[in-house]
Amino acid sequence: MKLSQKDVLGMKEMTHDDINLVLDTAESFKEISTRPIKKVPTLRGKTLINFFVEASTRTRTSFEIAGKRLSADTINISATTSSLIKGETLIDTAKTLESMRPDIIVLRHSAAGSPHLLAKLLSASIINAGDGAHEHPTQALLDMLTMKERKGRLEGLKVAIVGDISHSRVARSNIYGLIKMGASVALAGPATMMPRYVERLGVSIHINMEEAIADADVIMMLRIQMERQDESLFPSLREYSHCYGLNGKRIELASKDVIIMHPGPINRGVEIAPEVAYGPYSVILDQVSNGVAVRMALLYLLAGGGEA
Amino acid sequence: MKLSQKDVLGMKEMTHDDINLVLDTAESFKEISTRPIKKVPTLRGKTLINFFVEASTRTRTSFEIAGKRLSADTINISATTSSLIKGETLIDTAKTLESMRPDIIVLRHSAAGSPHLLAKLLSASIINAGDGAHEHPTQALLDMLTMKERKGRLEGLKVAIVGDISHSRVARSNIYGLIKMGASVALAGPATMMPRYVERLGVSIHINMEEAIADADVIMMLRIQMERQDESLFPSLREYSHCYGLNGKRIELASKDVIIMHPGPINRGVEIAPEVAYGPYSVILDQVSNGVAVRMALLYLLAGGGEA
Amino acid sequence: MKLSQKDVLGMKEMTHDDINLVLDTAESFKEISTRPIKKVPTLRGKTLINFFVEASTRTRTSFEIAGKRLSADTINISATTSSLIKGETLIDTAKTLESMRPDIIVLRHSAAGSPHLLAKLLSASIINAGDGAHEHPTQALLDMLTMKERKGRLEGLKVAIVGDISHSRVARSNIYGLIKMGASVALAGPATMMPRYVERLGVSIHINMEEAIADADVIMMLRIQMERQDESLFPSLREYSHCYGLNGKRIELASKDVIIMHPGPINRGVEIAPEVAYGPYSVILDQVSNGVAVRMALLYLLAGGGEA
Repeated sequence: MKLSQKDVLGMKEMTHDDINLVLDTAESFKEISTRPIKKVPTLRGKTLINFFVEASTRTRTSFEIAGKRLSADTINISATTSSLIKGETLIDTAKTLESMRPDIIVLRHSAAGSPHLLAKLLSASIINAGDGAHEHPTQALLDMLTMKERKGRLEGLKVAIVGDISHSRVARSNIYGLIKMGASVALAGPATMMPRYVERLGVSIHINMEEAIADADVIMMLRIQMERQDESLFPSLREYSHCYGLNGKRIELASKDVIIMHPGPINRGVEIAPEVAYGPYSVILDQVSNGVAVRMALLYLLAGGGEA
Repeated sequence: MKLSQKDVLGMKEMTHDDINLVLDTAESFKEISTRPIKKVPTLRGKTLINFFVEASTRTRTSFEIAGKRLSADTINISATTSSLIKGETLIDTAKTLESMRPDIIVLRHSAAGSPHLLAKLLSASIINAGDGAHEHPTQALLDMLTMKERKGRLEGLKVAIVGDISHSRVARSNIYGLIKMGASVALAGPATMMPRYVERLGVSIHINMEEAIADADVIMMLRIQMERQDESLFPSLREYSHCYGLNGKRIELASKDVIIMHPGPINRGVEIAPEVAYGPYSVILDQVSNGVAVRMALLYLLAGGGEA
Repeated sequence: MKLSQKDVLGMKEMTHDDINLVLDTAESFKEISTRPIKKVPTLRGKTLINFFVEASTRTRTSFEIAGKRLSADTINISATTSSLIKGETLIDTAKTLESMRPDIIVLRHSAAGSPHLLAKLLSASIINAGDGAHEHPTQALLDMLTMKERKGRLEGLKVAIVGDISHSRVARSNIYGLIKMGASVALAGPATMMPRYVERLGVSIHINMEEAIADADVIMMLRIQMERQDESLFPSLREYSHCYGLNGKRIELASKDVIIMHPGPINRGVEIAPEVAYGPYSVILDQVSNGVAVRMALLYLLAGGGEA
């Protein structure tokens, strides 16, 4: 089994069949992480480079654990220690890395489109681990795996995504993926945080959060980027929390067996109340576990699938 | 063989029998690091996360080498690249890490008590690699291993600990451990560096260094935290060195076969003269070797002992 | 097979026979990195410490990949997280590291001579990965491997090295190595960038770049250290580029089958035009691939050669 493409650049590019293949493969890989010996030799002798030009603990750690549980040689490169600080272009660095013959390069970069650029220039597989405010496909895949596990299906699911949609690569990737898989998506957030023309993607748009989450099967809360607060996209954190924070009362509007998701890290008491984040509807920690499984699946399908 | 507790939080919590078990296991693991092939498959498929919110090369490296020599998958997370800088709480980060199913999380953190907090919330084993000025149990265990090797016993040993006792997690952990194992402990340091009520732990207290080290079997010098110097706990480094620095002359006061210890990194010529640090009585480098052995023992007893 | 010395400190110290042994061994290791399973068990249970007190992505990554493809346990230590920032001396840190029983320590350090100091004090093998403006022997070895592959020989080759010779450890190491292997070396650069008495090493010196590269078999361009620009070693980047930049027109002066080398990272459009860097004469990416092979060879010859 192989993906139809060399790279995982975004949910926009990924086909319906490829998404199903990843989710099914991930499901079968989940079991490995529950064994006493959490390791298989599948990718022995393969080289995985985690190239993080933008910092991220959880995503990097998830990829590193995924690689090591598959026995791949796993190399971390972070921007602060990178020669990028010497002014080298991303292209030059990537060509240099490729000359060391990695099988897969996982790239996180603040510039949208950078993984696509590398994918064209290199023969190694590129996995986009987040490119600016553009896409974060492995997050969407782990989110969809979590929904499918809990709900048994993606088709026909009603998913509400709440928060700063326009700056969220998580939202964008989920929108592409969910629409492709037949779910319906309702977006909620202040008008200043809603991208233009997003309705063309087949989603509904709501300024009123209550509207979006009514009867939802899934509520996905987005992280407020505290560091962007000076842009004044909303009057105050308190105001934001009042209008778009998820609390126990708002959950009652949703489907009785709604699941609550958040890509993390959470801002306790801002976009989500602590008792909700770890309450009975929350699947936030499942998302993290599924992150390792989805990444194992992708590494396997890109670097090892052809030989198994 | 297993420890009686899931975690290694401090010498205060560790039982006499557990201490003996760790020291005996460490003794048998020392040999592995002297083989041409310094690796055993004992922890293959186990995941160890070194989560260092406070920087430390030697402790992190020691744990990383210990993990790799036991074939564990070893992941490093440091604070500077951590999502903690995004304002996430330690608890949220820890729950996220646990969802990736590590077997052991080694935590260094500037806040006293943080490993205890995680130990309660997580099912993974937590090893305290230093929490603020509170405890540093693996350092005390390697110190005790070194004493036991050199002296054949801990019971009845006369140990002097000299320096900034009140800010030293190394001192605190050694006091708890040594008293528990039947050694007698004499503390020396300026009154400004002596914690209140410390005599209740069963130690003797001395402003005069000569008094404390008289006939000592072991002299343990503590590192002066140069970065805390502006607190004016003593008039000057020169003054400190004059009153509490260990030099060849002072060593003559101790037992003829005294051993000199220091947790490192040393301030040459401040708390210890260079010729003493690497002189015939010094066991400073043995401490480092024993650090790897003690950490291998702990990893084995926490993650692998039940299956062997 | 073993090297005649415990350490790899510089090309000045390396014998003609040792250079041949490294190049031949590297040639045989190249094939491993082209296999589907890029890994051999040769150094299983050996410990390699990459101790980088000066940042470097490409050299560190190259050593890390080399170590992992040989199955060595590979530990990275970088200066920013190192206890060196606590004021410990390099010697104390190195002795501490040695007490953890590594087989090889790879050192990059801004102080010339630091690897030589460690080599005297430690029994582990030291590999110099760049010491100040002094030497960078693994770079010279990978350069020589690349020349030998392309030209079939080193003896009698005409090599031009162009740029800031006096600050370049790459230049220095190549000069020592190439002269030893019977190549002839022509240096070109502004007078302010030419070390004194360098002609005593048996090289020719040219202010005029055209003179140096005439009929050259190899042109090695050095990186201009943009960060040193305020030293005013030349009037402007544009002026430098005009006099010493390599472009298509200048290449015509060289031998018809000249190869173009650069240690990277390149300053596009300063010392080398982009179309030259990735043009038909360029072997820059071969240098990177050969870097992994040369480092695998060195690790093997230092830590594993005696047992094979």
